Amino acid sequence: MNSRQIVLASRPKGLPGYENFRFENKVLADIIEDEVLLKASFISVDPYMRGRMNDVKSYASSFQVDQPIAGGVIAEVIDSKSKSFAKSDFVLGNLPWATYSIEKGENLRKIDTSVAPASYYLGILGMPGLTAYFGIMDIGKPKTGETVLISGAAGAVGLVAGQIAKLQGAYVVGIAGSDEKCNLIKEQFSFDDAINYNTSRILKKSIAAACPNGVDIYFDNVGGKITDAAILNLNFHSRIVLCGQISLYNNTEIPVGPAILPRLLTRSVMLQGFIVSNYSNRFNQGLEYLAKWLGEGKLKYTETIISGFDNLPEAFLGLFSGINKGKMIVKI
Amino acid sequence: MNSRQIVLASRPKGLPGYENFRFENKVLADIIEDEVLLKASFISVDPYMRGRMNDVKSYASSFQVDQPIAGGVIAEVIDSKSKSFAKSDFVLGNLPWATYSIEKGENLRKIDTSVAPASYYLGILGMPGLTAYFGIMDIGKPKTGETVLISGAAGAVGLVAGQIAKLQGAYVVGIAGSDEKCNLIKEQFSFDDAINYNTSRILKKSIAAACPNGVDIYFDNVGGKITDAAILNLNFHSRIVLCGQISLYNNTEIPVGPAILPRLLTRSVMLQGFIVSNYSNRFNQGLEYLAKWLGEGKLKYTETIISGFDNLPEAFLGLFSGINKGKMIVKI
Repeated sequence: MNSRQIVLASRPKGLPGYENFRFENKVLADIIEDEVLLKASFISVDPYMRGRMNDVKSYASSFQVDQPIAGGVIAEVIDSKSKSFAKSDFVLGNLPWATYSIEKGENLRKIDTSVAPASYYLGILGMPGLTAYFGIMDIGKPKTGETVLISGAAGAVGLVAGQIAKLQGAYVVGIAGSDEKCNLIKEQFSFDDAINYNTSRILKKSIAAACPNGVDIYFDNVGGKITDAAILNLNFHSRIVLCGQISLYNNTEIPVGPAILPRLLTRSVMLQGFIVSNYSNRFNQGLEYLAKWLGEGKLKYTETIISGFDNLPEAFLGLFSGINKGKMIVKI
Repeated sequence: MNSRQIVLASRPKGLPGYENFRFENKVLADIIEDEVLLKASFISVDPYMRGRMNDVKSYASSFQVDQPIAGGVIAEVIDSKSKSFAKSDFVLGNLPWATYSIEKGENLRKIDTSVAPASYYLGILGMPGLTAYFGIMDIGKPKTGETVLISGAAGAVGLVAGQIAKLQGAYVVGIAGSDEKCNLIKEQFSFDDAINYNTSRILKKSIAAACPNGVDIYFDNVGGKITDAAILNLNFHSRIVLCGQISLYNNTEIPVGPAILPRLLTRSVMLQGFIVSNYSNRFNQGLEYLAKWLGEGKLKYTETIISGFDNLPEAFLGLFSGINKGKMIVKI
């Protein structure tokens, strides 16, 4: 079986470019006992993957140069020597960016496409949805009437986090990078207000105006100047759900900014950095709620789907210019 | 009755100086029902008071220009029209920097000088001791064998925090500003190791060497560059007990430093800013433990006592150059 795959051609310095990716052909061996042959259906591109391109120890292991990029993939079982999977099953796995791949059955999870479209398992019923769920429910813990401010609000995690906060009775304000995104989150995703950070003159004041009672929970997906402005609006005993720092992922030097600790001290702020795998023993609980709310229409969902295996690098790079609304997915 | 008092002559810009204080004479009225006449015995000088000299809303109200500085004071009751207090009682109160003062009984707490010397109620059995107790026990929560790193380790809070962490079975490393302080905390206060930040060439590496298993809890009293170096040594799932930022209190502009959030994110760090009054409904519990440990010899204590009401400004200013070992107290 011939497969096409994308390897890390070189480690990016700063913003990645097409030169960091290389397409290759690969001939797959025959599957053996316990293995399945997979055909990729949807491949996920996620901001955290930028960190894996660096040669730095972090929570996710580094990609190796000349080895395939890998991440969340929904694939169809083409052939199986695993008792757990049959032909035509759809599975979720951490798989290479490849049109076809071979994986042991134990590393795959079957998905139920009668509950939701397959691609949803890379988004609202997958890692981003769980990230939003545990970030809001376990760290932020909004009480009725509290104000929740979300950066990257129109992204895969932000869109879900804001809606979950609304379901808890919070007043939810999103920060996004265009009027189109701001309108989207207000009109279709039930956010109470939205701030376009690209047109705000003084973001600190725009946040203060949109959050007249101050900010009780700041769900941070972006970091940098947006977060510096958010921190100036935090209430006493507020919480920061530290989920992402996409605005800093491409910095080549350690970014410098105002010291935030004096403010966090005087306001008795709690901050919790987290990665979704911290909650892996409770994924079932999270997925149960997400599927229930989705089925009841209490959570809405959108994704930006780019078609074609060859467009994977473009889709990934687009995360850093914010071309996506909701989860970015590549349909193979 | 004639009293001498110290008022805020002007708001300091940056490091305070003697010019910000003015001594005045004041004639006290006769006490009326429920009031007591007090003679100051020990007056506390504390880093947080620097913030009260600014005209900025914070957790503690601002001092007013031409009005007395005020803070923790141990005083002897000279005359009483309160049913709760008798002559010769010793009391703790938030009182003006004055040789004599009048206060309502309801604002005073009687202290038991048979349990510990009166001055201890401004330190290990007072606000700094409670700060250390709740910071370690409620926020840091050290487990046996974890590494606790404490900045400002030879200060009023740090000395107690380190010893409480030791009682919980932690490996405790202190950061202080002189070899004398480092020797003190190791030899007399049971710290496992100490780092002199003034002689360390690369503080990040000194911390790494002193904390071979990384840092599980960072108890921060100082902020700034010391904290930047500490954060680079934090373990996964570590905690920051955000207690003080004395190195930044005299900054006239917002201090700038490396962005810390990316590191707190990838290490899943929890940070909690706090002020001791957040735990006011549990002060009795904290004081019970502190008194018990002190009585059993499990907590040791030291204070730097400066004599003379006229030396109050000098003692306060000395906090920022670190002349004190343990709690700084002025004996009147």
